[in-house]
Amino acid sequence: MMMSVQSATTDLVAELEAISGARHVLASEAARTLHSRTTEPESRCCGAVVYPGSADEVRAIMRLAARRSVPVWPFSRGNNWGYGTKNALGPGALILVLERMNRIIEVNDELAYAVIEPGVTQQQLYEYLCAEHPRLIADCTDSTPLGSVLGNAIERGYGYTPYGDHFGHLCGLEVVLPSGELLRLGGAGESCPTWNTHKWGYGPALEGLFSQSNFGVVVKGGIWLHPKPEKLVLFTLDVERSESLPAAIDALRELALAGTLQSHVHTVNAFQTLSLLQKYPADLLAQGAPIPKGRFAELKVRYGLPEWTAVGGIYGTVGQVRARQRDIRRALKITGTALTFFDGPKVAQAAKLVGLWQRSKGHGPLGTIAKAVKTTATRKDFALVALLPEMYGILHGKPTWSVLRSAYFKSRLSPASEDLDPARDGCGLMWLALAVPMTGAHATAALDLAEPLFGRFGLNMSACFTMMNERTVFFLLGIFFDQENGAERERAAQLYRELHATFSRHGYQHYRSGIPAWAAGPGAGGVAAKLLGQLKQTLDPAGILAPGRYHI
Amino acid sequence: MMMSVQSATTDLVAELEAISGARHVLASEAARTLHSRTTEPESRCCGAVVYPGSADEVRAIMRLAARRSVPVWPFSRGNNWGYGTKNALGPGALILVLERMNRIIEVNDELAYAVIEPGVTQQQLYEYLCAEHPRLIADCTDSTPLGSVLGNAIERGYGYTPYGDHFGHLCGLEVVLPSGELLRLGGAGESCPTWNTHKWGYGPALEGLFSQSNFGVVVKGGIWLHPKPEKLVLFTLDVERSESLPAAIDALRELALAGTLQSHVHTVNAFQTLSLLQKYPADLLAQGAPIPKGRFAELKVRYGLPEWTAVGGIYGTVGQVRARQRDIRRALKITGTALTFFDGPKVAQAAKLVGLWQRSKGHGPLGTIAKAVKTTATRKDFALVALLPEMYGILHGKPTWSVLRSAYFKSRLSPASEDLDPARDGCGLMWLALAVPMTGAHATAALDLAEPLFGRFGLNMSACFTMMNERTVFFLLGIFFDQENGAERERAAQLYRELHATFSRHGYQHYRSGIPAWAAGPGAGGVAAKLLGQLKQTLDPAGILAPGRYHI
Repeated sequence: MMMSVQSATTDLVAELEAISGARHVLASEAARTLHSRTTEPESRCCGAVVYPGSADEVRAIMRLAARRSVPVWPFSRGNNWGYGTKNALGPGALILVLERMNRIIEVNDELAYAVIEPGVTQQQLYEYLCAEHPRLIADCTDSTPLGSVLGNAIERGYGYTPYGDHFGHLCGLEVVLPSGELLRLGGAGESCPTWNTHKWGYGPALEGLFSQSNFGVVVKGGIWLHPKPEKLVLFTLDVERSESLPAAIDALRELALAGTLQSHVHTVNAFQTLSLLQKYPADLLAQGAPIPKGRFAELKVRYGLPEWTAVGGIYGTVGQVRARQRDIRRALKITGTALTFFDGPKVAQAAKLVGLWQRSKGHGPLGTIAKAVKTTATRKDFALVALLPEMYGILHGKPTWSVLRSAYFKSRLSPASEDLDPARDGCGLMWLALAVPMTGAHATAALDLAEPLFGRFGLNMSACFTMMNERTVFFLLGIFFDQENGAERERAAQLYRELHATFSRHGYQHYRSGIPAWAAGPGAGGVAAKLLGQLKQTLDPAGILAPGRYHI
Repeated sequence: MMMSVQSATTDLVAELEAISGARHVLASEAARTLHSRTTEPESRCCGAVVYPGSADEVRAIMRLAARRSVPVWPFSRGNNWGYGTKNALGPGALILVLERMNRIIEVNDELAYAVIEPGVTQQQLYEYLCAEHPRLIADCTDSTPLGSVLGNAIERGYGYTPYGDHFGHLCGLEVVLPSGELLRLGGAGESCPTWNTHKWGYGPALEGLFSQSNFGVVVKGGIWLHPKPEKLVLFTLDVERSESLPAAIDALRELALAGTLQSHVHTVNAFQTLSLLQKYPADLLAQGAPIPKGRFAELKVRYGLPEWTAVGGIYGTVGQVRARQRDIRRALKITGTALTFFDGPKVAQAAKLVGLWQRSKGHGPLGTIAKAVKTTATRKDFALVALLPEMYGILHGKPTWSVLRSAYFKSRLSPASEDLDPARDGCGLMWLALAVPMTGAHATAALDLAEPLFGRFGLNMSACFTMMNERTVFFLLGIFFDQENGAERERAAQLYRELHATFSRHGYQHYRSGIPAWAAGPGAGGVAAKLLGQLKQTLDPAGILAPGRYHI
């Protein structure tokens, strides 16, 4: 729920318009309300939104904000759904959206990196590489194709390919400081040839200071690109029963530690998969009720859903992929699981079959043929088979809209096939993302903490374990709720707070967080918090840059 | 050359003794002189050396130093030869050596990491893992087995294995700040289970702030360990003529980008290899003359040395290693080069043969047999073959003394078989290490800048290109000089300054540097330097921690 607040003062708006042009400053109540919509239960109405066109404009805006003591919250594109969308922590802030700064400044084919601005989207970079540098791929998230590549990396998002640790594959940043100064990181001058190739620069490595923080606005960055592999095989591991999950997690860790698995394997529960396939049952939505066990079991049978599904990619030359497949097959012989490999031709066949089914709408001789062919290969529903080419695309760095559809699970609106915007469309969604050691025992412990709380608050648990590195999974909990049901909205907010408090009490840290966490109370305190406060005071004495972000 | 300076004041020494015990404070002129010896041309005599036994003692020493305005220079073990050894930038400083803090606090077998103190040596960790966690290996450098694991990582050193980027494989640090406070990085409390598994923690990632800097003293750290591979094959690529080097560098980059090559390949020139095999010719040393071309050509023939030799490891399961070998063979078919693979049994054979040769001292029937067997396999000299098992050991994380011997190349002393200490033994050595994009063209450009300068100052060029990541090589130039020859010492110092100035002018950055660079003049200036100054002022208002380190 959102209460509208006073717009930014006329003077401030005039000054912003002088910097970025009147077209690029929004201050009307309608615009402020629209741009303050969130997928979370609470929203904070902003004072104005400004779209600077260059780093120089960002610099001028920072100086203006300091002079007028206005809090500024920067967003690369603002598709931060589930973590606060593009709200500030308090009302009346100036929202800085960098989407107009969308130049792909350089792609170095030989050294496999790109230098881009924060407005560059996943789709834009994907298309540019396909056209101009077909040997290279950029890792992408499974969120919107219109998401910012750089913004996601700075916030430490992740994807699926061997370069799925987005922050880990940044190299070379330019940052506007709260003072308005432009800082080039890496201990290198303008002509330094290793600015985008050499981690960790020269002298202290300061990139991390500007990630998950409020010390500066990143306006340019280098990201590493991956050469397209000679061969790419997608694998799925169906974990039929939850009891087999710990063994699967342990085996995946060992494969990753050995270097056999290079991709960031995502292991999703049946409820999470269901949210990709259909809308929440309308009758239950109206009641604000969770899907009961029996009904959920029927849906699982209908779609052919296992309890958990792990998805990953195998990259390399033909010979290496063959060897890896053999090793993966050997390691993932786990009771109660089923491993399947899909290479390019197999994925293409599946896509054709799904096309045939969709064109025939499941009827007539074509529909019958499609169904017969599919059934010989898999008991899974066509809706599930249809995801296969999308996942294979993501493993190649090709963004898709098909995963974001889950944000509409409890929305009254049906998602379009593209141009989704869950905040605009009134969807209810929060993510709570925890870092958990990659062991079966820890995964079980995390599930045991989360599941009863979802039950207590009458919400189904959407869960995913994403391998962040060889030793850590992110335990991503999705809280889907009906934004139009006030009681359910409140239950969702309470569930978030309970999960946050419970996992904190058990020592788990968030992998990433947002306004629901920052509003829930202060951070950990101690020497680390004191240091962050000192750094904030040094870099932003006026305290104008996203105050309270990450508890700083 | 070193002039002795006044010891620390009696009061300071007494206070240090009260903190760490009289046995652990050295302040006599003899001790201060001994511990201020360097391998570089100039030395700065310290005021005292203290060996704290715990983080609490480090904290007390920092508070004491701030109160008394005494500069403190921390060293994990101080084997920083070629970069300033364990000197401070100015005379009279308090040298803090952390070698007594040598506890291996934890090894997590399942998650493959260790938590250690800065005094833990490479040899100590190697032996501990062999005994207690035989499935795990720690990457090591090819410098002294008595070097600090953590110190090298903080300074961003490197090794050979897939975990050769030491800083990149740190996870979880504890730091004593100049204020004496103990800081735990990672945005996590004491009970956080992902402190040593989750890069990048929660909130801003501050680890980089304490690397190559002077903002704190690292007193504990997590490092990631690599599971011992099922199979490990060493390969050497002999590059017979320099003209083939660019193609080799380009091919190695592509192999690394594709993920086929996982190890940090070292490519050394013939002069660097020669320094491992024998002493500098005595007649030339006496004259202070470089080895002339003709004489060097003879030495190359005698040992069977190519112009450049690349060495790397291939890790994985048996099937994966076989596939990688095939791909590497295909990619490294380069005119003028020769590729050889050595698996475990082949290395063991070589070791046996070398043993036979050494026992027979090359004479008698055994010597004749050894020579005959070797010659059917390789034209290389036994001294070179003897390095093979050592390199194979390093690829397994087993430290060796055999590479450090090169530091004695121009020393009058012959190196012992172990317990080498080039500073104690009066060796003359400086490293100048530059970051260069990993392309044949850049490697050529870097060589073209360096070679004429070595010629101008009458010193042979020791050079190595080490792959730091898939896009960057470190161009490591060794300046070996006769510490007892004043004129040569001066030429070495001049050569360093010329190289430093020349590469800076061309935009190249140091990968790592030391006192010779920091003494050569201020850093780059600009916003970055201003920011570092502000951070220094915030974290160390008294300016007592290693002032001037990395130009900060």
